[in-house]
Parts: sequence; structure tokens; C-alpha cells
Amino acid sequence: MTTDTPAVTVGVDFGTLSGRALVLDVEDGRELGSAVHEYTHAVVDRTLPGGGLKLPADWALQIPQDWRDVLRFAVPSALADAGVRSSQVIGIATDFTACTVLPTTWDGTPLCELPRFAARPHAYPKLWRHHAAQPEADLIVRRAEESGQRWLARYGGKISSEWQHAKALQVLLEDSEVYAASDRWIEAADWIVWQLTGEETRNPCTAGYKGVYQDDAYPDAAFLASLHPDFADFTAKIEHPLSSLGSPAGKLSPAAAELTGLRAGTVVAVGNVDAHVTSAAARALDPGHMLAIMGTSTCHVMNSDVLAEVPGMCGVVRDGIVPGLWGYEAGQSGVGDILAWAVRTAAPHEYAVEARRRGISVHELLSEKAAAQPVGGHGLLALDWHSGNRSVLVDHHLSGLIVGLTLDTRPEDIYRALVEATAYGTRTIIETFEQAGVPVTEFTAAGGLLKNTFLMQTYCDILNRPVNVLAAEQGPALGAAIHAAVAAGAYTDIRAASAAMGRLERHAYTPDPARAAAYDPVYAEYRALHDHFGRGGSDVMHRLRALRTDTSTTTPPASNC
Amino acid sequence: MTTDTPAVTVGVDFGTLSGRALVLDVEDGRELGSAVHEYTHAVVDRTLPGGGLKLPADWALQIPQDWRDVLRFAVPSALADAGVRSSQVIGIATDFTACTVLPTTWDGTPLCELPRFAARPHAYPKLWRHHAAQPEADLIVRRAEESGQRWLARYGGKISSEWQHAKALQVLLEDSEVYAASDRWIEAADWIVWQLTGEETRNPCTAGYKGVYQDDAYPDAAFLASLHPDFADFTAKIEHPLSSLGSPAGKLSPAAAELTGLRAGTVVAVGNVDAHVTSAAARALDPGHMLAIMGTSTCHVMNSDVLAEVPGMCGVVRDGIVPGLWGYEAGQSGVGDILAWAVRTAAPHEYAVEARRRGISVHELLSEKAAAQPVGGHGLLALDWHSGNRSVLVDHHLSGLIVGLTLDTRPEDIYRALVEATAYGTRTIIETFEQAGVPVTEFTAAGGLLKNTFLMQTYCDILNRPVNVLAAEQGPALGAAIHAAVAAGAYTDIRAASAAMGRLERHAYTPDPARAAAYDPVYAEYRALHDHFGRGGSDVMHRLRALRTDTSTTTPPASNC
Repeated sequence: MTTDTPAVTVGVDFGTLSGRALVLDVEDGRELGSAVHEYTHAVVDRTLPGGGLKLPADWALQIPQDWRDVLRFAVPSALADAGVRSSQVIGIATDFTACTVLPTTWDGTPLCELPRFAARPHAYPKLWRHHAAQPEADLIVRRAEESGQRWLARYGGKISSEWQHAKALQVLLEDSEVYAASDRWIEAADWIVWQLTGEETRNPCTAGYKGVYQDDAYPDAAFLASLHPDFADFTAKIEHPLSSLGSPAGKLSPAAAELTGLRAGTVVAVGNVDAHVTSAAARALDPGHMLAIMGTSTCHVMNSDVLAEVPGMCGVVRDGIVPGLWGYEAGQSGVGDILAWAVRTAAPHEYAVEARRRGISVHELLSEKAAAQPVGGHGLLALDWHSGNRSVLVDHHLSGLIVGLTLDTRPEDIYRALVEATAYGTRTIIETFEQAGVPVTEFTAAGGLLKNTFLMQTYCDILNRPVNVLAAEQGPALGAAIHAAVAAGAYTDIRAASAAMGRLERHAYTPDPARAAAYDPVYAEYRALHDHFGRGGSDVMHRLRALRTDTSTTTPPASNC
Repeated sequence: MTTDTPAVTVGVDFGTLSGRALVLDVEDGRELGSAVHEYTHAVVDRTLPGGGLKLPADWALQIPQDWRDVLRFAVPSALADAGVRSSQVIGIATDFTACTVLPTTWDGTPLCELPRFAARPHAYPKLWRHHAAQPEADLIVRRAEESGQRWLARYGGKISSEWQHAKALQVLLEDSEVYAASDRWIEAADWIVWQLTGEETRNPCTAGYKGVYQDDAYPDAAFLASLHPDFADFTAKIEHPLSSLGSPAGKLSPAAAELTGLRAGTVVAVGNVDAHVTSAAARALDPGHMLAIMGTSTCHVMNSDVLAEVPGMCGVVRDGIVPGLWGYEAGQSGVGDILAWAVRTAAPHEYAVEARRRGISVHELLSEKAAAQPVGGHGLLALDWHSGNRSVLVDHHLSGLIVGLTLDTRPEDIYRALVEATAYGTRTIIETFEQAGVPVTEFTAAGGLLKNTFLMQTYCDILNRPVNVLAAEQGPALGAAIHAAVAAGAYTDIRAASAAMGRLERHAYTPDPARAAAYDPVYAEYRALHDHFGRGGSDVMHRLRALRTDTSTTTPPASNC
């Protein structure tokens, strides 16, 4: 297939509410055009579309046609925006949220698209944030502990309710017909590639991080049977050879060519996960180079040539980010959403008025006021556990704490203390990796919080190391387009493509020595509180949470008196 | 002196910002009229009046003429408001903030009114909340511990920077000329009576609670000399026979008669302190009947026939509230002001808009939203130490804490948790009294927080005992007027007058058994946090406070980067 110049690739990022296509110049990674398509049904968490069927709490589904529509609308729009012809496109790659997973027939048809299953909630894709499979996840962990499954330590000792096995087990237990009809149980990351090529492939990233694939195998049948007798054959629904990241999954099918406006035969890369593929965008692929994708929550990904059991990590997967290295993942369950909570809860009327008058956001106003303070000046210390703690404690029933409040405490003091707490959380993760024998030699940030320069400088001071930033707005789509270039043969491997096409601003922030030194004792206080409330010194957070759940209907409100 | 009927008395309450006169029917305590006079100079905490002399931090002075103006304006206005003639007035009594203390000449002239001292800050009355004598207070406690002063235990082991000795020692150390010129060092509570009668008297309440008068003596000369050689003779400036509470201090002088519009010769009662005199207003004089005056802070006063060393009490004084009993005082340094902090800090824009639209205060809105919750429903627990902890920890360097925060935590949740925390603080005080062998058999509330019925019911549920309320708006002035009736001979003693003229609504609140039971485990959590952070388990609050003070100038703000 001949190609016009300049050669380009297309990266398509499937997020939680929309999909985005990006067209890149293969030579230097220059962004030529992009387009977004919002999902028609967004997140389905109340009622199934069409019918009035009400979903239980903690459910979160999506509609496969919304994803196809991204291919149909966003890809051609991005090409048009870039002003490039389909003949210039040498490859396309995708990335997806994960674990977003669905049941399909042998040919990849989502069960929810079969009329007989259209009204059955379990036939629909379960979005990553479907959290209704917690009992199943608890059972998986318990049985794994009981039977001493070696893979458990690769996940910091916990299997998430968000992952493939917990979600599939919930289907089995709650709708065995749908379970039985599921020929394939597949990550959306792989399903979308199937839509492009017409053939099933599987990527090692979701297989490892979400499918508990370790040492060339999924959990064995005996273990699966210990969860439920009918679950023993589950592996048959997911088993498939894994294709290396950055390799071609196949060629664009005629049907997909018609859908996207690209040429049939265009190279399609193996599927990707949004966070992990961003490493390529940020040139953060070398062993020890940690990438933090900082948004409502933060995801940490890092390659290493060392295999270690890091306490509280989300997972370590061979070839999980690039072939040939161990890919580590860790995370903080609340970061930007904790700051949004502060704006929602602890920003009074006058602040809203001032921000509006000055045409800035309340976040910007609070950051500005918070920045003009010396380290320790507010006298506060917070624990960043409003959403629980993912790494390193892996305890979602922990909660937030603020100490040091006085009558002089202002909203910007609270905001700053919360920013600092999330930075202490990141430092705790880095130190835990290093103490486990996995060095962290470089730190790069990406994601929506980059725009808060006060926050970034605070992270830099608290980590006491230079902070690089991803110098591109659409990290996942950029990373996917880089993978597409590798799959198309424009580069020998992901690292070479990343070096040429990635966007890293090195040492965008450097620590202020005085502030860094001043933060050390406060961080020591954070760790002391962290261990006291997170490691059994006081179990008050769990007891308060239990009270919240248990007593919600047993006592009348005081207003009745 | 013949008296028209009905006989009345006048109570005059000198507060922090204004003075109020109340005219009462002696027979039944019916309020006939009242008037308020705002102090012209309010609290002098920035510059001395007239000159530009700037005051240091933590200073708080007042102007004696502002107090005389209350006698001059509020007393005649109250009589006019009541429609009574001066011939009906059988007695007048006053109460004052304490320890508000001033240096005078032998004839009671405030030193600040002598031209040569008008520009000398130490010549002015120091208001109760003048907090600049902390080093002196620390020295007093240290020396008292070293020399094993027996009176120290009568004050829970701490002498406050607000009290007479610390303030006087500060004058000596910082302006020895003013100290030397001070013939008398006198509480405003006694000084105002001197203005009325023309003769110095002293009351046992301020002598005991603020002047460290115990077992018929002030601290001895050897102890005073250990503070500073020139302080050895300090007792000479305060020594004077004490007059029983409720007894006549003298008769209204012709000059004071002209000032107030009352008849010369009208009986003037011995001076009083606002909190303690409110016991008479609330009929809370029996042993074991605790009165809590709940405003920005809370003051607890209670009589007992038992003498005990209650940990963390403010003081125990023989005859300190009524003759013949031991008067106990305890306190919570932050209550209403913590709730005001919550309104200022954690009540967002929409709440301000909703409150305005509905014509209610944000306090009312938050209370309404908070009331409609089951016990434990918010999942929060707070420590009410935004202003430190007076009783029972006596540590002003502690700070507030909130634990249990989630992304769902709303402003009304925080507000309710803070209300509950202050109630837990009260319960801690009551339990500490009882564990020390001083029974608390009845609980009455007075003060500005009475108007918050949600708060009152919450206290009732958490204390798990009926709560009485003072059924009068002006407790101190009512209490003073009752003392005036006793001094004038209308009743045999304070208790008899209180029974006839006081205003108590008994069992205004009764605990809801289900809520009371539900609060018990949360209170246990409060006590565990209380002891962990307040009794050495974690000293993080002190370290954070030290950081706040120490680092305020050593590190540049993050915004400079």
C-alpha cells in the first residue's frame, strides 16, 4: 500500500464520557488535527436505554454503539481537521478505559445487541467504575489467600471489584443465562480492535492488570471452581494468545474502512489502556521513570527491570507497558476530586463572588491564595483518603482527616493542606517502591491537574525531586498514535517512536531547597498519622463508616423532637 | 428610706462590648424594663485612643469612662423604659467580665486617667481577653510547681494568663513605673462598685477565681519574690477584706446618684462576675446543679458541698458563687465560635443564597439540614479544639480535628459533627467531675446558643439527661438584680431570692432514648481521639502549631517559583 507524505497515524482514546481521535505526523509527533465525539448514552447508571429498567446502586454500564460512533464520527472529523487524506494514514491505534469489559458471541457481537438480551443488564459492558461486584472481589481475595495463590502478591494482595473476574462472577451469580451465552468475555480495549480488524486479539496490558494473567497463565480451574462450580471454565471465555504491545493486531477490515473513512488494509495496532499508553506519549518508558497521570484520581505507571512485591501496588505485569520490562501500576483513589470537594464544601460565598468578578475559577482563586503561604504556615495536616486509599494501604473504607484547625483556618488553608496531602500520598508510594527494591529515578506528571502550577510546584517541593511534565494535552491519544507508528513499522519499537514523537518537558519544575527541607518534618507527621489510622493504631475510620451504614435507619433525626 | 411600690431592683451587666441595665419587680422577678449602652471604644486592641500608639499582638484594653457611661445612660433609660420612679428602687447590683483588671490610685482613680500615664498602655484596664501575659503565666505555673504551692491544684494545675497575677507581673516587667504607681490593682467587678459607693470593697468570686485567694490567703511573699524580687509586695495592692456575695457593699454615693438618676443611699450589692451570677438567675444554686453558659465559649459553674481536685477545672472557690458552698468553674474555650467558623469556612455559595432567599441565617439553614440526619449518619467525628481545650485538658495549643471525611461529606455534616463535638466536650467535663467525686445531678443551659433548638436537643441526647434552660434573655443582669434584692434585705439569702425571682424552664429538653443509645459508641470514639491527641498519644497538634509559628518567615511561598 503506497502512502502519501507526510505519513500520519491516528490515535483514538476512548474515555469515560467521550472518545477523541488525534492525527499525528509520524516523523516528529506533531499534532495535525483532532476531534471529539461525546457518547450518546454517557454512563448508564440509572436505567437501561429504551426500557425503564432501573439499575441497582454502584452499577455503571456503557453502550457499544457509542464506541463505534467514535470511529464513525471522530476519526473522519480528525482527518478533516488535520487536512490529511486517508492515503497518508499508515496506522491506527486505540486505547480504552479499563477494566471495561463485556460479554460477546464468538464473532464479537455484544450480547446486549441481541434482542433476547436487550433488557438484561448483565448483557451490557460493565464500565471500569461499575462497583457492584465487591462481594465477588472479596470472595476472590479470600479464596486466593486460603489456597495460597502466588499471583495474589503481584497485585499488592488485593483483587479489585473493578476487574474481569469479579465482574464475570457477578454475571454468573446474578444472571447465569447471560453468563452461559457469553462465548467471549473481553476488554473493550480488545473489543474495539476486533471491530477494526474483524479478528479477535488480546493485549498483555489488560490481561495482566485486569485479568490476573501471570507467569503465562490465568488462575487455574481449581481456583475458579472454589469461587463457584460453574465458574471453573471461565478461562475459556478469555483465553487467547496475547499480542505484544506496539505490534500489529491486523489490518483495517473493509467494513471498518467504510466506518472510519480510512483505507482498508491500514495497519491496526494491538489494544491499549489509557494510563499505560500515556507512558509512550511522555517518553516515560525507561526503567525507573514513573509517570503519574493526575486527574480526579492519580494512576502511577512505571517500567522496571526488577521484579519485586511492592506493598499495596495495583499490579506488576511482564510486558505490561512495553515488551521486555516489568510494568508497575499504583494509584491514589482521590486527588482532583478531593480538591473539587474542597471547592464544593469549603469555599464560602465571598470566594465564589470574588472568583466570578475576576473571571477565574474557584480552584484558581484558592490556589492563588494558598500559594502565598510559607510551608507549615496554615498549621494543618490532612490525610487524602476521602475516597479511601488505593496505594499503599489498599483500603477503600478509610476516610479523610484534617488536624490543626483553628478559628483562623481559612478555606485556602484547607485547600493547600489537601493539595499537600495528595503530594505526601505520592511520596509515600515512591518511597514504598524504593524500599521494596524498585528504584524511581525520574518523575513525570500528566493529566488535568498539570494546569495548576501551584499544585505542581508543591508536588515538586514535597517529592524533593525535579518534576517533568507531559507537554501535550491529549496524552492517551498521543500514546496510541505512537503505538500505531510502531505497528506500522515506522519505528523499530515503542521506545524509539516515543523518543521521536513523544512530548516531554524535562524538569518543568525544580524543588525549592528551603521549602523541600521545610516539608520533610511535615511529611514525617503525615506518615505517622498515615500509619496510625491506616495500619491499625486506630480503627476509628472503619468504625465510623460502619456506623454510617448501620445506623442510617435506626435513630430518628433530632428535628423530630 | 421609704420606698414606693412595687419595689424594684436594678441589675447592670458589663459585657465585652456593651453594658445593659435591667429593672426587675422584686416580688416575682418580672422584667419591667431594660436599656443597653454600647461602649464608645469597644475593645482597644490596636491603638490607644487619642494617640497613635500601636499595641502589640494579643493586647486587649478597655476605657473606664465607657463603663461609667453605662451607669450614666443605661440605668436612667432602663428606669424610664420600665416606667418606674427612683423611689421604687431598693437596690442596685452589677456584674462584670472577669478577669478584667486595672491599676488605680488609693482613691480608685484609674491610672490611665492621670495625664502623665494617658499614653502608657499598662495604665489601662486589661480586658479578660488580653492574652499578652502568657510568659508570665507560664512562669507562675513553673514556680508554683517547683515550690509545691498547694493552691495550684485548686485551679486544675494551671494559672491562666488572663488572671490578676499574670497581668500584674506583665506590668511590672514592662512598665515598672506604672506598676509602682498602682496603689490598688482591682477587678473591674469591684471597681464599678467603688464608683457607686465611693468605697473600696472586694468580692470573693474574683478574689478566688482570678486572684488565687485560697484558704483565707493570697500567694505568699516568698512565692511572689520567686517570680520577681519587686513582685514580693504585690499582695498589698489587692489585699482587702472580702464581702460576702449578696451582701451590701454600701450605699449609693451622692455623686453616683446624680450619675444614675437613683436616690443617694440606695443599697449597692457586692460585685459579681457575669457567669457566676447567672446561677441565681437560673435557680441553679443547689449542690450538683451545673449551669452551662453557652455562647462563643462555654462556662460551667456549679456549687457543691464537696471539695475535690477535679482534673482540668478552672477553679474551685469557697463561697465563690454563694456563701457556704464550694463553687466550681470549668469551661470549653470554643463552642459558638467554632460553629461561626464553620459558617465562615464551610458553607458554600448556594447555602448563602438559599438562606438569604428564605430569610434565615446560615446557622439556621445548616442546623435544619443537619437535624434531618440519624445519629452517625454523616460518618464524621470532630475534636472541638479550634481554640484549644480549657477543661479538662487545659491546653490552649491543641487544635481542631475532623475525621471520616468522604467526597459525599456536606457542609451540614461538618456543622453537625462540630455541634456534637462540643456536646461531647461538655459530657467529658461532667464525667470528669463525677469521677473526681463531685456529683452533677442537674444540668441547666443559658446563653446565646439556647436559640438553636437542634443544638440543644443534640446536647440533651449526648448528655443523656434532661436539660433545663434559663428562661430569660439577660441572665447576668437578672442574676445581678436578684443579688441586689438580697443586699436590700428583700430576701434572706441568694437562694431564696433566686427561687422567687429566677427563671428556670425545667426539662425543656429530654433525651430521645434511641439517639442517646446511638451516641454512646460515638462518644467512646471521641474519648479515644481526645486522649490520643490530648494526652500524649500523638503530639502532632503541638508540633503543627510550632511549625506554624516557626516557619512563618523562613520559607518563600510556592507562588514565587
